[in-house]
Amino acid sequence: MADVVEFRKEEPAGLVRIERQAPVLRITLNNPPANALSIATMRALAGALDAVAADDAIRVVVLASTGKVFSAGHDLKEMTMHRADDDGGRAFFETTMRMAADIMLKIAALPQPVVAEIDGLATAAGCQLVASCDLAICTDTATFCTPGVNIGLFCSTPMVAVTRAAHPKQAMEMLLTGETIDASTAKDFGLVNRIVPQQYLRQVVDKYAAVIASKSPQALRIGKAAIRAQAGLPVADAYDVAVATMVENMMAADAKEGIGAFLDKRMPEWR
Amino acid sequence: MADVVEFRKEEPAGLVRIERQAPVLRITLNNPPANALSIATMRALAGALDAVAADDAIRVVVLASTGKVFSAGHDLKEMTMHRADDDGGRAFFETTMRMAADIMLKIAALPQPVVAEIDGLATAAGCQLVASCDLAICTDTATFCTPGVNIGLFCSTPMVAVTRAAHPKQAMEMLLTGETIDASTAKDFGLVNRIVPQQYLRQVVDKYAAVIASKSPQALRIGKAAIRAQAGLPVADAYDVAVATMVENMMAADAKEGIGAFLDKRMPEWR
Amino acid sequence: MADVVEFRKEEPAGLVRIERQAPVLRITLNNPPANALSIATMRALAGALDAVAADDAIRVVVLASTGKVFSAGHDLKEMTMHRADDDGGRAFFETTMRMAADIMLKIAALPQPVVAEIDGLATAAGCQLVASCDLAICTDTATFCTPGVNIGLFCSTPMVAVTRAAHPKQAMEMLLTGETIDASTAKDFGLVNRIVPQQYLRQVVDKYAAVIASKSPQALRIGKAAIRAQAGLPVADAYDVAVATMVENMMAADAKEGIGAFLDKRMPEWR
Repeated sequence: MADVVEFRKEEPAGLVRIERQAPVLRITLNNPPANALSIATMRALAGALDAVAADDAIRVVVLASTGKVFSAGHDLKEMTMHRADDDGGRAFFETTMRMAADIMLKIAALPQPVVAEIDGLATAAGCQLVASCDLAICTDTATFCTPGVNIGLFCSTPMVAVTRAAHPKQAMEMLLTGETIDASTAKDFGLVNRIVPQQYLRQVVDKYAAVIASKSPQALRIGKAAIRAQAGLPVADAYDVAVATMVENMMAADAKEGIGAFLDKRMPEWR
Repeated sequence: MADVVEFRKEEPAGLVRIERQAPVLRITLNNPPANALSIATMRALAGALDAVAADDAIRVVVLASTGKVFSAGHDLKEMTMHRADDDGGRAFFETTMRMAADIMLKIAALPQPVVAEIDGLATAAGCQLVASCDLAICTDTATFCTPGVNIGLFCSTPMVAVTRAAHPKQAMEMLLTGETIDASTAKDFGLVNRIVPQQYLRQVVDKYAAVIASKSPQALRIGKAAIRAQAGLPVADAYDVAVATMVENMMAADAKEGIGAFLDKRMPEWR
Repeated sequence: MADVVEFRKEEPAGLVRIERQAPVLRITLNNPPANALSIATMRALAGALDAVAADDAIRVVVLASTGKVFSAGHDLKEMTMHRADDDGGRAFFETTMRMAADIMLKIAALPQPVVAEIDGLATAAGCQLVASCDLAICTDTATFCTPGVNIGLFCSTPMVAVTRAAHPKQAMEMLLTGETIDASTAKDFGLVNRIVPQQYLRQVVDKYAAVIASKSPQALRIGKAAIRAQAGLPVADAYDVAVATMVENMMAADAKEGIGAFLDKRMPEWR
C-alpha cells in the first residue's frame, strides 16, 4: 500500500517528495524548475536517505525529479547571498559542498540499491547525483553537463563522481568544455545504464525496481557493502575482502534458502 | 607436435583437458554440461596453470570449455552437501572461494598471456574467469551474467573481477539485477575483446594465439609482469616501475635482436 | 597576434615548432617522417611545456605534428648507437625513458589543458603522448598502436598511460598483439575524444581550443590541479580534496564574477 507524503512546497520537507510503497521508496526532487540543491533540499534528501537506511521493508530506492530539469546543482542565488556573511561566505560554501559530498557518500553507503530516474537536464551537482547512483535510467531527451567552467567555478566535486564513472578523456571533455552531452553519449561514457522513450521512463524504472526487489535483500545488502569495501584496493586485497564476504553470505539464511530452492527447482522465499 | 593428454571423465584430471602444442597450451574445462568449478576442477585448473608457468616453450595459454556452457561457476551441489559438516560448511566454503580467487590471481601472475575462448554461457565464477583472463574472444551467441542475487548469494568474488573490467554502473547492473547480457553488451562493457560467428571461434582464437606467440616471449613476460606491478599505483609511481622495466628490457637479448632486426629490415629471431 | 618561432630543422629547437598565438600555444613535433622522440626532441618538448606553465596569457596548449606520423615513439637508431657505450647503453636508456615519463607527468601537471591533434599514426611513446593529453582529436585515418612486442621491447611506459585511459582488456589487446587500431576503435577505447575528416581537423581543434580559452582560466587551473590531486584516492578522501577545492574556488575572483554574470544574465569578464 502506498504511503505518499507530500508537503506543501513552502515547507522545507516539500522540497523532496517521499513515496513509500514498500519494497520501493521513491524520492522526488520537488523544487522545479531547477530542483536546485539548496541547503533545505539537501537536508531533506539526506534525511530521506538516512531514514531509508534503517527501513528493512525497503529494498530499492528510486531518485527522481519533478519537471524538465533533473537537477541544476547547487543553488547559486543562495550561495551568492552568503557572500555578504562576515567570512565572505566561506563557512556557508563549506557547508554546502560538504553536504552534497555526504549525500553522494550516503548513496554509496546505503544498504539498498539506488536507481536514478532522469527526465531532462542534469547539470553540475545534479550530474554528480546521477553519477553517484548505483544505476541510472534516462529518457532519450535527457542531457548532462558539468558546466562550472562557464561561471568560474570548476565542477570539482562533480568531477570526483564523473571521473570514477567514465574514462579519463570523456570526463575531461565534460569538465574542460562544460558542453552538454546527450543521452546516447552519456550511456557510452558510463553515466547511465539505459535510455528509454519518455513515455516509458517510469514503467522501465518500475520494472528495474521490481526486478531488484525480487532478489534476496540480504544478498543485496551484503554485496553492496562488499563493493564499497573493496573499491580501489589492490586486486589481491580485494579478493581477501570478497572471499570473507562470500563465506559469511553462504552461512546466511538467504543463501541457504536460495541455493536450496535453485537445486529443488522452486522459487525461493527470502527471509 | 601435439601432446594431447585427455583423462577419462571419472578421473579428477579429466575434468580439465590439457592440450600442449607448443607454443600454445589449451586448457579446456571438460565437465559439461555446467563445467562447474568444483574443488576437483579448480585443483586441476590451478595445477595446469602452475605447470605452464614454468614451461618456457609455451607462449600463450587458451582457456576454453566443452559444451554449451563456458562455466556456470561454483558447484552448488557440492557446496550444499558440505552444509552437513560440523561447521555448517564454513571451512569448505572458505576453501572453495579461496581456490577460485587464487586461480584468478594465478592468471594475472602467469608469465604467458591467457586468452579465454567462450562459446555459450559464462555465469558467476565462470564470468569471473572470463573477466580475469588477459583477452577474451566469444561467439555471437555467448552470454554473461553474475546471477548470485537470484540465489541469495551475491557474486562478491566475481564482482572483484567485473568491477575492474567494466564501468561502475555497467558492473552494478549485472550484479544487482543478475540479468544476462549478450555478447555485444559484454564487448561494450569491456568483458570481451572480440565477437565472432561460432564456426570461426577456434580459428580466430588460434590466430590470436599465433600472433602473440610470434612476438618476443621475453618482452611479453617482462611486460605482463610490469602491468601487474604498476596496477593501481599513482601514475608517477607507476612510471618509476615502468621506466626501470624498460631499461632492463632494453638490456635484454630480445630487444637487442628485435630492434636490430627492425633497423636492418629483417625478421627477428627470438632467443 | 601570432608569435611564430620556427627554427631550421638542423637546429635542435627546430625539432619542435612553437606557435604562440595567445590564448593558444601550438607545439608541433617537427621532425618528419617519424617525429621520433629523440633526446633533442624531448628536451625541446619538455622546455616548451616548462615555459608555457608560467605563461599566464596561454590558456590552452595544442600538441600537433608535421607529416603523416604523429609520432613513432622513441628514436631507435639513437638508442641503438648507445649500445656502444661503456655500460651498454643503460644510462642512456634510463635518461630516454625518464625524460619521456617526465613529459607525460608535465602534461598532467600543466595548469593549462592540453589537446592532442592527431593526423596519422601514433605508435609506442607517440601513443603514450596521445593517451596522456587531456583531450585528443584525430582524423578518421589516424591509427594507434603499442607495437613493442614486435621488436622485443614491451611498451611498458606507454602501458602506464594506455591502461589508465582504456578498459584492461582493450589495453591488453593493444599491448599483447601490437596490432594497429583505427580511429573508431581508439574512440571506443577512450584514447581519443573525437574523430573528424582530415580537412576539418585543424578547424575542429581550433574550435575546441577557443571554447576552452573562453572559460575562466582560474577555474580551469584550479580544476585541473584538483583532478590530479584526487586521482586514485578512495572516494571519501577524494571528496575531502574536492570540497576544499570548491570552497577556495568560490572565494576566488572568477567565481564571484562568473556566478554574478550568470545571475545577471550577462557575459562574464575573467580576471
